[in-house]
Amino acid sequence: MHPFDTAMALTPAGDDRFHGATSPAYANMVGPFGGTTGAVLLNAALLHPARLGEPIALTVNFASALTDGAFEIEARAVRTNRSTQHWTMALSQGGEVTTTATAVFAVRRPTWSAPEAVAPIDVPRPETLPPPNRGARLEWVKRYDMRFVHGGLPSTFEGHEQPDSRTTLWVRDEPPRPLDFASLAAIADCFFPRIFVRRHKVTPIGTVSLTTFFHADSAMLAAQGDRPVLGTAKGQNFRNGYFDQSAELWSDSGQQLVSTHQIVYFRE
Amino acid sequence: MHPFDTAMALTPAGDDRFHGATSPAYANMVGPFGGTTGAVLLNAALLHPARLGEPIALTVNFASALTDGAFEIEARAVRTNRSTQHWTMALSQGGEVTTTATAVFAVRRPTWSAPEAVAPIDVPRPETLPPPNRGARLEWVKRYDMRFVHGGLPSTFEGHEQPDSRTTLWVRDEPPRPLDFASLAAIADCFFPRIFVRRHKVTPIGTVSLTTFFHADSAMLAAQGDRPVLGTAKGQNFRNGYFDQSAELWSDSGQQLVSTHQIVYFRE
Repeated sequence: MHPFDTAMALTPAGDDRFHGATSPAYANMVGPFGGTTGAVLLNAALLHPARLGEPIALTVNFASALTDGAFEIEARAVRTNRSTQHWTMALSQGGEVTTTATAVFAVRRPTWSAPEAVAPIDVPRPETLPPPNRGARLEWVKRYDMRFVHGGLPSTFEGHEQPDSRTTLWVRDEPPRPLDFASLAAIADCFFPRIFVRRHKVTPIGTVSLTTFFHADSAMLAAQGDRPVLGTAKGQNFRNGYFDQSAELWSDSGQQLVSTHQIVYFRE
Repeated sequence: MHPFDTAMALTPAGDDRFHGATSPAYANMVGPFGGTTGAVLLNAALLHPARLGEPIALTVNFASALTDGAFEIEARAVRTNRSTQHWTMALSQGGEVTTTATAVFAVRRPTWSAPEAVAPIDVPRPETLPPPNRGARLEWVKRYDMRFVHGGLPSTFEGHEQPDSRTTLWVRDEPPRPLDFASLAAIADCFFPRIFVRRHKVTPIGTVSLTTFFHADSAMLAAQGDRPVLGTAKGQNFRNGYFDQSAELWSDSGQQLVSTHQIVYFRE
């Protein structure tokens, strides 16, 4: 079983409830990688028997750190329309809510379609780029094959600053795993906190709210399979304890899969 | 009383509940302008006696159209930490939830701060730009003084397309009103649907999910007062019934006030 599937495993517990557990394979500094927490909340809606269509939007609010171990998710379809469905979710440990989420699902229909944002051009193929450092300190980082085209983690942390935090990378699950909505939601959160890149300094941080918009449908995911997706990220504003960063993920044929935006707490 | 204050008026109804009503001054094609719906949900948390700090993030999910008239809001502080607070809100009419929302509030502390995104440069002052067309068809549009620097609504709707949907404008409440968090949240949604700009064509649309990150604190809002703020918006991807657009609002001294992102349903 792929470690991501282990992390996504949920047991229905009746009344819109599911039981799951954090996964040591995705351990972060404290508790699990937030990307998997958001993904497992989405997965509760994906697995729910009342589910209509595919994800369009997901917002995850990290109210407090998860502790390693069991959790319960409540996923409730608040409103089901003809072609859209609105969800609220909450993840609890020991009866205390640690994470809230909302999602919109929809049945898509063919319409006029056109991109506006464009994928980075002249990007070397992932297999020509250095493989990730297998000595990564954090478990979750080892679960992704990230190959940096530009803007990797600074090699020195001597406190000098750079004016932008742009990163371009290829990324896939490690070991390879066919892309689905849950893994796409997790990958959308794989970008290191932009403040580390800007400041060449690691300070305590924690995402407080993460929103992902899905442009991919299941046919696009199937076409992408387990090959690396291209990602770009940048920060916007860092001010008095909070900064926001935005990112995009692209298929290897240049189609936008998601746009994602988060606001992150930082200290110092 | 300013029409925006009328639209924001809420009467506490006990047990985390508030009563309010849609405001004809902010009428949209169907029901009220979504910006005021999001703002009044935020306002319920702002007015709640348990509120801690100031808004950091707001997500509003438009589950179904509001009808003109009374509504009830439930605003619940799900988790209060030392310096952050997580809210879930729901707006109901006739016992049916039409709109859900989440918000994060926080007490900010001084830290290292630096922008990354920059305000548009070489922008003419608002008073040198043409005043808005007072013959606007939609009531809510008349409640904003929008002066377009670039990328206004196309003057002809003959169906020819343009490759980007960028808009730069100055905007303030009409009549002028000192900026606060609720009015800032509403202004964040003032940008016309990017698909009208791209396609030179008006098709049925509706925002399904809207996220706003607040960089402004109350001191920045007080410094801005009732003068116009600068806004920029662009689309990302339009595909099979959904597109996303992102926008920024800037103080007239060039400080970023918010970044905001929404995904919008469209037909045809």
